[in-house]
Amino acid sequence: MLFHVRMDVRLPHDMPEEKAAELKRVEKARAAELQQAGTWRHLWRIAGQYSNVSIFDVRDNDELHAVLSMLPLFPFMQIEVMALLRHPSSIRDGDR
Amino acid sequence: MLFHVRMDVRLPHDMPEEKAAELKRVEKARAAELQQAGTWRHLWRIAGQYSNVSIFDVRDNDELHAVLSMLPLFPFMQIEVMALLRHPSSIRDGDR
Amino acid sequence: MLFHVRMDVRLPHDMPEEKAAELKRVEKARAAELQQAGTWRHLWRIAGQYSNVSIFDVRDNDELHAVLSMLPLFPFMQIEVMALLRHPSSIRDGDR
Amino acid sequence: MLFHVRMDVRLPHDMPEEKAAELKRVEKARAAELQQAGTWRHLWRIAGQYSNVSIFDVRDNDELHAVLSMLPLFPFMQIEVMALLRHPSSIRDGDR
Amino acid sequence: MLFHVRMDVRLPHDMPEEKAAELKRVEKARAAELQQAGTWRHLWRIAGQYSNVSIFDVRDNDELHAVLSMLPLFPFMQIEVMALLRHPSSIRDGDR
Amino acid sequence: MLFHVRMDVRLPHDMPEEKAAELKRVEKARAAELQQAGTWRHLWRIAGQYSNVSIFDVRDNDELHAVLSMLPLFPFMQIEVMALLRHPSSIRDGDR
Amino acid sequence: MLFHVRMDVRLPHDMPEEKAAELKRVEKARAAELQQAGTWRHLWRIAGQYSNVSIFDVRDNDELHAVLSMLPLFPFMQIEVMALLRHPSSIRDGDR
Amino acid sequence: MLFHVRMDVRLPHDMPEEKAAELKRVEKARAAELQQAGTWRHLWRIAGQYSNVSIFDVRDNDELHAVLSMLPLFPFMQIEVMALLRHPSSIRDGDR
Amino acid sequence: MLFHVRMDVRLPHDMPEEKAAELKRVEKARAAELQQAGTWRHLWRIAGQYSNVSIFDVRDNDELHAVLSMLPLFPFMQIEVMALLRHPSSIRDGDR
Amino acid sequence: MLFHVRMDVRLPHDMPEEKAAELKRVEKARAAELQQAGTWRHLWRIAGQYSNVSIFDVRDNDELHAVLSMLPLFPFMQIEVMALLRHPSSIRDGDR
Repeated sequence: MLFHVRMDVRLPHDMPEEKAAELKRVEKARAAELQQAGTWRHLWRIAGQYSNVSIFDVRDNDELHAVLSMLPLFPFMQIEVMALLRHPSSIRDGDR
Repeated sequence: MLFHVRMDVRLPHDMPEEKAAELKRVEKARAAELQQAGTWRHLWRIAGQYSNVSIFDVRDNDELHAVLSMLPLFPFMQIEVMALLRHPSSIRDGDR
Repeated sequence: MLFHVRMDVRLPHDMPEEKAAELKRVEKARAAELQQAGTWRHLWRIAGQYSNVSIFDVRDNDELHAVLSMLPLFPFMQIEVMALLRHPSSIRDGDR
Repeated sequence: MLFHVRMDVRLPHDMPEEKAAELKRVEKARAAELQQAGTWRHLWRIAGQYSNVSIFDVRDNDELHAVLSMLPLFPFMQIEVMALLRHPSSIRDGDR
Repeated sequence: MLFHVRMDVRLPHDMPEEKAAELKRVEKARAAELQQAGTWRHLWRIAGQYSNVSIFDVRDNDELHAVLSMLPLFPFMQIEVMALLRHPSSIRDGDR
Repeated sequence: MLFHVRMDVRLPHDMPEEKAAELKRVEKARAAELQQAGTWRHLWRIAGQYSNVSIFDVRDNDELHAVLSMLPLFPFMQIEVMALLRHPSSIRDGDR
Repeated sequence: MLFHVRMDVRLPHDMPEEKAAELKRVEKARAAELQQAGTWRHLWRIAGQYSNVSIFDVRDNDELHAVLSMLPLFPFMQIEVMALLRHPSSIRDGDR
Repeated sequence: MLFHVRMDVRLPHDMPEEKAAELKRVEKARAAELQQAGTWRHLWRIAGQYSNVSIFDVRDNDELHAVLSMLPLFPFMQIEVMALLRHPSSIRDGDR
Repeated sequence: MLFHVRMDVRLPHDMPEEKAAELKRVEKARAAELQQAGTWRHLWRIAGQYSNVSIFDVRDNDELHAVLSMLPLFPFMQIEVMALLRHPSSIRDGDR
Repeated sequence: MLFHVRMDVRLPHDMPEEKAAELKRVEKARAAELQQAGTWRHLWRIAGQYSNVSIFDVRDNDELHAVLSMLPLFPFMQIEVMALLRHPSSIRDGDR
C-alpha cells in the first residue's frame, strides 16, 4: 500500500556540528536499509530545499507510522502524508 | 530530468456529461502515450480526491510545459510543479 | 485500517430542489449500508456546518477511495483524508 | 456531549530527556483515567505526526476546558476543538 | 452553555431582489424570536462587513446546530463556531 | 463604542514560574478594574485554548489601544481587533 | 477617529457594461462628496490592482459602517478594516 | 512617488531592556527626521498591535529601500510594501 | 525603475473561443509593443501554469499601473507587484 | 534552462556580528563568481526586504540544487523555486 510523504528537515541552528553529522549518517544508513527492504520505494530531493519527496510501500498505517517515527531525524522534520492508490489511467505495473 | 506534478481536476458542474466523458477519454489516451514514451514516469491517484501525483521525466522546462499545457484537461486543472533531483541517500537506480 | 475523513458539502445554489433531495436520499441510504457493513465506522455532524467527521475502516487505500468516490455527493464535496492508527495511550479495544 | 479535538505536541528541543519522559508518563496515566471514566471516548494517532485525534464526551464546555487545560502536556500542545453532534444519517447507537 | 459564532453572508449576485428581501425579512423575524427566548444572547455587526459576531446560549451542541442550520440565510452563510466558557478573571455575572 | 478583541497568550517556555505567576496575578487585577469601570464589557475563555474573546467599550481607538497595550501580558499576546456596531436585527438594549 | 480601509473590487464578468459604468459613475460621485465632507480623508490606488487603500475619519464605528455599506460598489467589494490612532512618533498635526 | 508600508515590530523577549529602550529612542529620532524631510509622509499606529501603517514619498524604489533598511528597528520588523498612485476618484491635492 | 510582476490568467470557462482568441491576439501585440519600448523588460512563462513572471521598467508607479491596467487581459488576471532595486551583490550592468 | 528563485534571509538574532559579516562577504564573492559564469543570470533586491529575486540559468535540476545548497547563506534562507521557460509572446532574445 502506497503513501506519499514529504519531509522538510529543520535542524536547530545551535545544534553542534558533530551531532548534526552523526544524525545525518545514521539517517542515511536507515534510509538505505528501508530502500533495500522495499519499504521506502522512491526518494527524491526537492531542488533548493532541505526536503524530500518519498513513496513508501507498507502493509498498513501502523507500519507507516512506525517507520517514519523511528527515523533518526524525525524530531527535526515536518512531515506530510497522503494515501495513494493505483490511478485508473496508469499503465505501469510497478505503480501499485 | 524529473519533476513532481500534482494535478487537481475541477470540472464545472454545468459541463454536459458527454463532454466530460469525452475529455476523460482523450486524457486517458494521452496519458497512456506519455507513459509509454517514458515522459510520464509515475502516476498515482490521491485517496479521496479527484487528483493525481505524477513524476515526469523531460528534457527541460520547455518540454514539461508543452506536455502539461496540451493535456486535454489542462483548462480544468490546478497544477503544482516542483523540480526534483536524485537524493544523496537514494540507492535506487531508477530514481534519477 | 482506519482513516479520518472530513467532508464539506457544497451544493450549487442553482441545483433544483428535487435533485438535491434525491441526492441526499441516496447518500443517506448508501451511508446506512456502509455503516452496517462496518466500513463507515463513525459519522458525526460538525456543529454549524454542512459537514461531517467520519472514521472509515477499510482494507487498504484502494477500498477507501472506491468508497468515497462512489458516494452520491462526491462531486459536491471537499474531502480531507488522514491515515490513523492505534494510539499507544489508548486503552479502548475498539479503536484499532 | 461530543467534541472533536486535535492535539499537536511540540516539545522544545532543549527540554531535558528525563523531563520529557516524565511528562509523557503522567500524560499517559491521565489519558488512561479519562478513558476509563468515559470522558476521553476515542483516541487515535495521526500517521507520521506527533499528534492525535480524539473524541471527548463531556457535560459542557467548562468540563472540556478543565480536562484539556489540566493535561500534563497542555503547555506544549497546539489544540483545535470542534463541537460535534449526532449525524442524521448515523445508525450507530454509540455515536451520540 | 455559550458559543461564539461568526456568520458571513454571501448572497449570489443573481438572486432576485425580492427573494433576497424576503430572506432578510424572515431572518430578522427569526433572530428576534431567538433573542427573546434567550438563545441568541448577543448579536453585533462587524464594521464594513456583511457579517455578524454572535453569542448563543444553548443546552448543548445539538441545539446549537438546530438553531443555526434552520436560519433562513443558512445556505448563504459561512459560519465559524467556537465553544466558550466562563473566564477565571471575569467578574460579570451574566457571562456564564 | 464596541470592539471585539481576541487575545492568544504565548508565554515563553523558559519564563521562570514566579514571573509567570506574578504576570497573571497583575493581569487578573487589571482585568477586574477594567470590568468594574465598564471598559472590558465581556470576557470569555475559548475552550481548549489559552485565549479569550472580549468585548471592549471605549470612547475611541486611542483608548482601546491604551487599554490593550498597557495590559501586563501585552508583550506575550497575539491580538486581533474588529470594530463592532449595533446590528439592525438586535433587540437587546445592552448591545450598543 | 481614523480607520484604514482596503477595498478590492470584484465585478462579475457577466455584468452588462452599462451597469458597470453607471455603478462606477455614482461611486465616483459619492467618493467626491465624502472627501469634501472630510470623511474619506485619503484615497490611493494600489498599483496593478482594481483596489484602493483609504483612510476614513468618522465619529464612531457606526458612521464607518454606514458610509462603507452604502457605497454603490459595496456588494462587489471585499473590504478590510483596521482601527488606527496617532503614532507616538508622529510629528504631523494632520495625522490624528 | 508613494508607497504604503506596514511594519510589525517583533523584539526578542530576551533583549535587555536598555537595548530595547535605546533602539526605540533612535528609531523615534530617525522617524522625526524623515517626517520633517517629507519622506515619511504619514505614520499611524494600528490599534492593539505593536505595528504601524505608513506612507512614504520617495524618488524611487532605491530610496525606499535605503530608508527602510537603515531604520534602527529594521532587523526586528516584518515589513510589507505596496506601490501606490493617485486614485482617479481622489479630489485631494496632497494625495499624489 | 524596476518592478516584478506575476500575472495569473483566469479566463471564464464560458467565454466564447473567438473572444478568447481575439483577447490573446491583442494581448500579444500589446506585449510586443511594450517590450520594444523597453517597458516590459523581461517576460517568462511559469512551467505548468497559464501565468507569467515579468520585469517592468517604468518611470514611476503611475506608469506601472497605467501599463498593467490597460492590458487586454487585465480584467481576467490576478496580479502581484513587488518593487525591485539593484542588489548590492549584482555585477550585471543591465539589472538596474 | 531558467529558474526563478526567491531567497529570504533570516539570520538568527544571536549570531555574532563578525560571523554574519563573514558569511555575507563570502556569499557576495560566490554570487559574483556565479554571475560571471552566467549561472546566476539576474539578481535583484526586493524593496523593504532582506530578500532577493533571481534568475538562474543551469543545465538541469541537479546543477540548480548544487548551486543553491552550497551558497554560504543557504542554512539561513527560505527558498522558493519556479521552473521558467520562454514565453510565446516574448520578443527578447536573451530570455530563453
